[in-house]
Amino acid sequence: MIVVLKPQTTAEQIKKFSDEITSQYKVTVNTWVGTQSTVLGLIGDTASIDTDIIQANPIVESLTRVQEPYKKANRKFHPDNTVIDMGKFKIGDGSVTMMIGPCSVESSEQMAEISQRIKKAGAAMLRGGAFKPRTSPYAFQGLRAEGLYLLTEAKRNFGLPIVTEIMSPAHLPLFEDVDIIQVGARNMQNFELLKELGHCDKPILLKRGLANTIEEFLMSAEYIMAGGNEKVILCERGIRTFEPMTRNTLDISAVPLLKKLSHLPVIVDPSHAAGIPWMVEPLSMASIACGADGLMIEVHNNPAKALSDGAQALTPDQFDGIAEKIKGLAGYLGRSVNTLE
Amino acid sequence: MIVVLKPQTTAEQIKKFSDEITSQYKVTVNTWVGTQSTVLGLIGDTASIDTDIIQANPIVESLTRVQEPYKKANRKFHPDNTVIDMGKFKIGDGSVTMMIGPCSVESSEQMAEISQRIKKAGAAMLRGGAFKPRTSPYAFQGLRAEGLYLLTEAKRNFGLPIVTEIMSPAHLPLFEDVDIIQVGARNMQNFELLKELGHCDKPILLKRGLANTIEEFLMSAEYIMAGGNEKVILCERGIRTFEPMTRNTLDISAVPLLKKLSHLPVIVDPSHAAGIPWMVEPLSMASIACGADGLMIEVHNNPAKALSDGAQALTPDQFDGIAEKIKGLAGYLGRSVNTLE
Amino acid sequence: MIVVLKPQTTAEQIKKFSDEITSQYKVTVNTWVGTQSTVLGLIGDTASIDTDIIQANPIVESLTRVQEPYKKANRKFHPDNTVIDMGKFKIGDGSVTMMIGPCSVESSEQMAEISQRIKKAGAAMLRGGAFKPRTSPYAFQGLRAEGLYLLTEAKRNFGLPIVTEIMSPAHLPLFEDVDIIQVGARNMQNFELLKELGHCDKPILLKRGLANTIEEFLMSAEYIMAGGNEKVILCERGIRTFEPMTRNTLDISAVPLLKKLSHLPVIVDPSHAAGIPWMVEPLSMASIACGADGLMIEVHNNPAKALSDGAQALTPDQFDGIAEKIKGLAGYLGRSVNTLE
Amino acid sequence: MIVVLKPQTTAEQIKKFSDEITSQYKVTVNTWVGTQSTVLGLIGDTASIDTDIIQANPIVESLTRVQEPYKKANRKFHPDNTVIDMGKFKIGDGSVTMMIGPCSVESSEQMAEISQRIKKAGAAMLRGGAFKPRTSPYAFQGLRAEGLYLLTEAKRNFGLPIVTEIMSPAHLPLFEDVDIIQVGARNMQNFELLKELGHCDKPILLKRGLANTIEEFLMSAEYIMAGGNEKVILCERGIRTFEPMTRNTLDISAVPLLKKLSHLPVIVDPSHAAGIPWMVEPLSMASIACGADGLMIEVHNNPAKALSDGAQALTPDQFDGIAEKIKGLAGYLGRSVNTLE
Repeated sequence: MIVVLKPQTTAEQIKKFSDEITSQYKVTVNTWVGTQSTVLGLIGDTASIDTDIIQANPIVESLTRVQEPYKKANRKFHPDNTVIDMGKFKIGDGSVTMMIGPCSVESSEQMAEISQRIKKAGAAMLRGGAFKPRTSPYAFQGLRAEGLYLLTEAKRNFGLPIVTEIMSPAHLPLFEDVDIIQVGARNMQNFELLKELGHCDKPILLKRGLANTIEEFLMSAEYIMAGGNEKVILCERGIRTFEPMTRNTLDISAVPLLKKLSHLPVIVDPSHAAGIPWMVEPLSMASIACGADGLMIEVHNNPAKALSDGAQALTPDQFDGIAEKIKGLAGYLGRSVNTLE
Repeated sequence: MIVVLKPQTTAEQIKKFSDEITSQYKVTVNTWVGTQSTVLGLIGDTASIDTDIIQANPIVESLTRVQEPYKKANRKFHPDNTVIDMGKFKIGDGSVTMMIGPCSVESSEQMAEISQRIKKAGAAMLRGGAFKPRTSPYAFQGLRAEGLYLLTEAKRNFGLPIVTEIMSPAHLPLFEDVDIIQVGARNMQNFELLKELGHCDKPILLKRGLANTIEEFLMSAEYIMAGGNEKVILCERGIRTFEPMTRNTLDISAVPLLKKLSHLPVIVDPSHAAGIPWMVEPLSMASIACGADGLMIEVHNNPAKALSDGAQALTPDQFDGIAEKIKGLAGYLGRSVNTLE
Repeated sequence: MIVVLKPQTTAEQIKKFSDEITSQYKVTVNTWVGTQSTVLGLIGDTASIDTDIIQANPIVESLTRVQEPYKKANRKFHPDNTVIDMGKFKIGDGSVTMMIGPCSVESSEQMAEISQRIKKAGAAMLRGGAFKPRTSPYAFQGLRAEGLYLLTEAKRNFGLPIVTEIMSPAHLPLFEDVDIIQVGARNMQNFELLKELGHCDKPILLKRGLANTIEEFLMSAEYIMAGGNEKVILCERGIRTFEPMTRNTLDISAVPLLKKLSHLPVIVDPSHAAGIPWMVEPLSMASIACGADGLMIEVHNNPAKALSDGAQALTPDQFDGIAEKIKGLAGYLGRSVNTLE
Repeated sequence: MIVVLKPQTTAEQIKKFSDEITSQYKVTVNTWVGTQSTVLGLIGDTASIDTDIIQANPIVESLTRVQEPYKKANRKFHPDNTVIDMGKFKIGDGSVTMMIGPCSVESSEQMAEISQRIKKAGAAMLRGGAFKPRTSPYAFQGLRAEGLYLLTEAKRNFGLPIVTEIMSPAHLPLFEDVDIIQVGARNMQNFELLKELGHCDKPILLKRGLANTIEEFLMSAEYIMAGGNEKVILCERGIRTFEPMTRNTLDISAVPLLKKLSHLPVIVDPSHAAGIPWMVEPLSMASIACGADGLMIEVHNNPAKALSDGAQALTPDQFDGIAEKIKGLAGYLGRSVNTLE
């Protein structure tokens, strides 16, 4: 960490400030006295330093981090990819995993119909919302506990592992049979929830917040990992920008960036990113071409009757076509697609 | 709600679609058959309509809401200002309320020193964080239950009502002596938390999320109000933009807009908006000049030693000067400033 | 165009307003009187309607365009792809074109060295800046006329068609030997420049502005086309968002969206989008996988000595590797890459 | 400027790099060898350094500017406010100047009617567009030369100095009788235009671009000043964000920030910022309360008939009320409002 001090700072002030820092953090301070200003170089465990406190000191002009503030999620300290073992397949080992299903779980029949179709098309996991974060209190909030029951029923009947969203630490006991617990974009900085998930032993699929930076995203992964649970999957799902034609702007650069900065698997959700069904195919192709470990795609047996976000769901027939293209592209790139058949 | 149908839509499809809508929602459908396309006008309780479902229908070209999706927070249906009675003063009645204090509660001495100073300067409420949402799991997370104790101690000793942030529904029992419960920007769409707060009888100070629109902000207020708790105070605290010089961009237009669209009180937090102490004064002046009902400002007895966000805190001496200017401006505008002396 | 009128509007006001519209524009007005409000449907040449004027009328509540405001750039009216004939190859016919070269033209030797290398690697065009838009007046502004001379010299010696940026209509006479004239992101809404280029007969490569929507982008293309020059190539080069790790955020969704909305060729500039050399490869792969007609990539023989934007340039050796991957991917997708060898 | 080098950098590489820098720029390089990495401190005329070139060097890890890249616009080097003498009044001397008029100049009668009304209400300048930047090539583009004639006619008849926008250096000869030349938001980085205006002796009102940072804004002012014309007035007019309710988001923080960083006058355009007439009053009050030197407001004698942007214009009657409030607030703050009566 490089700290530039204000021009008028006295030697005494510098000494006092350095002593304070070394007494509070496990770092050494190197002082470089220039003709116009003095620069301090802090070396050691700078990730634990609260930059706000340093910057509040009246002798500090500016501050630059050289080292990233995340440790457990940092590829520098963990060069090998994190590979998450799902039993019949792995996530993060170079293969491609398709997590497919409806926005909301609605009925036993719906889950059966969709499960059969997507499994046949090549999906390795069933996704579906039981607890639904909705902007309006008057919109359908999900079947909640009943939805979780329907998901596990589909899992039993069709052998598809399931991924679904949690919205409160209080609901954790209900997620016992869930294979991957999802944290939605709106809860990416619900730190109390992240802390709880750090103590559980299931993989966590963490979605990037609508307006969160890559660094904040990795810091939220760090929250879970700091609690002891290192099985985190990162999911890029679009960020909020000024462009109104797409629901969000898919930040495709996040895929190679996250793979470079971190060892965690990275998947993409093209359904929520654009909010437009026909765009799922090109965005899926782009995601796989630049290295994503998987895709989360909304498929509904009857989008026009969907109880939430139907506007962005594909039909099983449409997904069949996309799955074929994804398998072809992955194959060309020397990557396998995880299937259960 | 205006629904434009695709050009090729048949009369039969329109009939089926209209029947579906009227069976699901308390609305009537007016059909206007044009030469090129057909337009449906939905009249009635359109706030309860899930626009995603309508848009997912393959015959729908586009959809425009004419009526706002929020009802209880809507000034159209509640023309009079919501006035929240705090005992010795009111919020939302035209007066100005200053909620002042440190980012984090740190010690009994700190709270005593700050409380005395800000009360004398004209603050009507003491703010301070016990539970702190921090980007890094390695940063100070607040004194938590102990912090709440120190806040209530200061309240007892100095007669200042207190406002502090909640981060999980599980902590609610600890907030019994808190006068206003704050929901932070990162939890603005933590819907499970909002629902719980809808069942409590304390005023809720709801901060706008970093990347949330005015409409989403009002919908989150609606979540609380739909549960029965109509004592909601809205707080604009800056949104995330591309400008790097300020921590966030204070959306000053939100103040008059929220006052127009809603009957709820609106306050501004200039400390978090800019993240720069010397900007608190001009931004406070601007906020009062365009109608804000109050200000939430960070003041710390020793910013350089603050355990969080010290960089944006003012000293009590600096606040004295700002408080004088605010009182002067409010007076010129014919508004009183609530004080406890 | 759907115009919703305010509830209290009288029949007389509606009549007067409708008469005004039909006298000013080639449209017919259909009136739909509902129980609560009246809706007007404007049918005909609505692209020419100034929505600001309609909205300023005190009887208007809201307005929704059903038809796009661009005509010549609109795929609805021109279903076939625009194919631009460059002599030895075509742009927009399904093939992939690589436009490669340094940010700034610096010397005859530089241009010779780069031209040889990129031509061999598979580039079909040489790019290079002669007039450089720089944020600082103190930064290198390009060799200007001399730079254009060096570009045309390289064109003569190596047979590579050239593309370079124009910054003022006054410079147009200097661009006689340029094959494609580029309009930079900062000039996307320099309407006087666009009008001039509408009267020239060279293809125009129009870059999307940092903060311009897809619709505004197409409207700027429309400016050029309205003047008679229909040879416009659209270039996505990243938009400005809150994310600081990349210089801009590549809006990959713009590629399929622009291809759907318009018949014009669409290329991507991954060098400017991310500003990070190692990210050019994954972003190029993503761009081709989702349908881009070409790529504009910065390659410099000695990035560390580049007079501008060296930080984002690749070396010729690095480009060799990327070009191979792009050719492989394009081949897999059944698309050819235009080369001059 | 602080340059952090990569850990493995050799002494020889550092020597070579330092020599290159000192031979190219008027700076001295201080080297600070730490245990893990080496830091260089560049002191001297660092504003002229092209940071892109430094960052392209493979031994460079990161770079931080300590000094601002603008010099002539920088308050550090010019502590006193720039005061622009308009003859009967001054801009930048603590007084408030109201620049009022229609978006587009339309007719002699219009200009006469508006001029009389706004002069009486307290405007010191008449604004009006002759050359209009419009998103659509099919929208009214302004009366151009005829519009300039009508403006100068109004100036002669009513004694109001005029401010109007230029869109191309080629039009400069037409602006001889214009008192302040405006550069619009879309041309803020039209560097060829800025250079030309640097050679003219009229005050330039420079509007901030929709997606430009404060630093870029000051760098564009620097372009004009570097050419010799130091009479620049900065105008904040809203930036592009994700919020759809207002046309742009007024960045009110820009006012105190620009006043602190620069000595140039700063005005606000609340009409374009919000795009909503009733919001002009609260945003004007906020602007004056936080230190703006003036306001640019759209007033039209018949907004519903305006040929452009009528939706955001006020009537002369509405402006009368706002002008009274502004004069009252300015008076309370000890500032005078410039009038011509």
